[in-house]
Amino acid sequence: MKIAVDAMGGDHAPKEIIAGVMQSLQEFNDIHIQLFGDETKMKPYLTAHERLTVHPCTEIIEPDDEPVRAVRRKKDASMVRMAQAVKDGEADACVSAGNTGALMAAGLFIVGRIEGIERPALAPTLPTIGGEGFVLLDVGANADAKPSQLVQYAIMGSIYAEKVRGIQNPRVGLLNIGTEPGKGNDLTKAAYDELMKAPLNFIGNIEARDLLTGTTDVAVTDGFTGNMVLKTIEGTASGLFSMIKDVFASSVKTKISAALVKDDLRGLKKQMDYTEYGGAGLFGLNAPVIKAHGSSNANAVKNAIRQARTMAEYHVSETIRETINEEETR
Amino acid sequence: MKIAVDAMGGDHAPKEIIAGVMQSLQEFNDIHIQLFGDETKMKPYLTAHERLTVHPCTEIIEPDDEPVRAVRRKKDASMVRMAQAVKDGEADACVSAGNTGALMAAGLFIVGRIEGIERPALAPTLPTIGGEGFVLLDVGANADAKPSQLVQYAIMGSIYAEKVRGIQNPRVGLLNIGTEPGKGNDLTKAAYDELMKAPLNFIGNIEARDLLTGTTDVAVTDGFTGNMVLKTIEGTASGLFSMIKDVFASSVKTKISAALVKDDLRGLKKQMDYTEYGGAGLFGLNAPVIKAHGSSNANAVKNAIRQARTMAEYHVSETIRETINEEETR
Repeated sequence: MKIAVDAMGGDHAPKEIIAGVMQSLQEFNDIHIQLFGDETKMKPYLTAHERLTVHPCTEIIEPDDEPVRAVRRKKDASMVRMAQAVKDGEADACVSAGNTGALMAAGLFIVGRIEGIERPALAPTLPTIGGEGFVLLDVGANADAKPSQLVQYAIMGSIYAEKVRGIQNPRVGLLNIGTEPGKGNDLTKAAYDELMKAPLNFIGNIEARDLLTGTTDVAVTDGFTGNMVLKTIEGTASGLFSMIKDVFASSVKTKISAALVKDDLRGLKKQMDYTEYGGAGLFGLNAPVIKAHGSSNANAVKNAIRQARTMAEYHVSETIRETINEEETR
Repeated sequence: MKIAVDAMGGDHAPKEIIAGVMQSLQEFNDIHIQLFGDETKMKPYLTAHERLTVHPCTEIIEPDDEPVRAVRRKKDASMVRMAQAVKDGEADACVSAGNTGALMAAGLFIVGRIEGIERPALAPTLPTIGGEGFVLLDVGANADAKPSQLVQYAIMGSIYAEKVRGIQNPRVGLLNIGTEPGKGNDLTKAAYDELMKAPLNFIGNIEARDLLTGTTDVAVTDGFTGNMVLKTIEGTASGLFSMIKDVFASSVKTKISAALVKDDLRGLKKQMDYTEYGGAGLFGLNAPVIKAHGSSNANAVKNAIRQARTMAEYHVSETIRETINEEETR
């Protein structure tokens, strides 16, 4: 299994990316990593490994680069070279913590879309209170969506949940403003009817307030709404944690309280921690493309590599291709 | 100032509704309350007051009634009679904690839409970390919206923030998936351009993750997205609070910790408490219609009545009418 990694993307690149790569080489004996990046910048963190190949690149895609233009012009950027390795069959999957828009463009233009897939979808796995997690898609690969796209998102999310997350017959819910059939905007009303006919364990409409309680394994929505929900969860959680921190720091009494509960609360924070769940998959492409979170540490990078490995091992892209083709000829 | 109140709506009706009414009569010397409801059910909680008139009704709109049909058929329902009192000029504003859809229907069909307003909007005020709060609209009066409707929402939210919340030149943000101009779906891209031209302190696109940090005074979005964001905030906050509760209950050590910090955390919960912010206004109608939260206690009801009173006192509906007319003739 060969996995291409962009060493230069994310807030802590290349240090944490390389540390994550080294950890994953230790943990998984069956992977070979191709690392793309600036040789001088990578050097301080690199140690030789028999299953690690380093590919020097002269360019970097910056966080504020205009995605499509950057991917088209910076031919020697680490992210572009990484995607090219997949396209050329030299790697089976790829991972980057860099510019999300650019990675989506590289995925679409270089790795390529599966025939029959209207639009790829960006799909993170989010934590739930009980720890099961759920796949949310799309969170912004496409701002607007048609009902038929939502059905494809549902199929891709379901295949991923089954193959990679090991969930038998995963429950697929349509994110909506009420649970009753007939609720929603024009898009969700039309999508509901199409989802009923699709080969899925479709459990109907689900509400945003129930997402964290593990009500579904796959939550389907358009990229605009998904992005909004994702950022609202992030903003609310981080806002509450910072308010709680202020409460604990407010007096001697609360500081003692904090000392007593600190370790347990850290466990809770870890449970809500995205790094444990790997990166967001870009579904609908010819090979697995994983977007690791921009603030990824070594652990998050390792988990994203694990995810790429599992997607490749269980042939997620191929299964999506076959299922979509079957759907089209039904 | 005459305010009509539906005694029968909400989880704790009529007890908490009547308790809230009595509190508001004590607090505000200039209001007269008209209370609509089932006489037998209200009786145990009622005490005579010179500024309270009780109007017995024989019907109730239930939480799961189909809104439009219920409002059309149950002519003697407390909510319908309350709205009729406003329509007939016998009350200046009204408050209900009942079926949201039915209240929107009663508002639209009985109280009536302001001429020139395409669609009314449901607008709660949500808490922020710093305690300033912000107005979010629409949260579901209309699932789909056109750009011109978002501009009207913005104007109505801005007038409310200024008149009722006392914010000079309130900042109006467009909820979007990125802050740069040009970001978003078809709707927000078109709305951005129209908002730039409107007579508003439009601060551009805002992201959902920044809502709780007090980044804006008014956040404008379509009803589908607004409902999703509202319920995501609710779900995330209640999920985190329940997880924290579990952590505190997990050992002797954490129980001691909980005892030390309990009062301070209660303060935090109060800060995030919707009941302090009153109900959601239904904007764009001929008179103030306030939807108090379904789980309203007496305090929430009192705050909703205060809100109705302030909206009537500062002529919010009239100002909206004038501003929309000026906009149309520009």
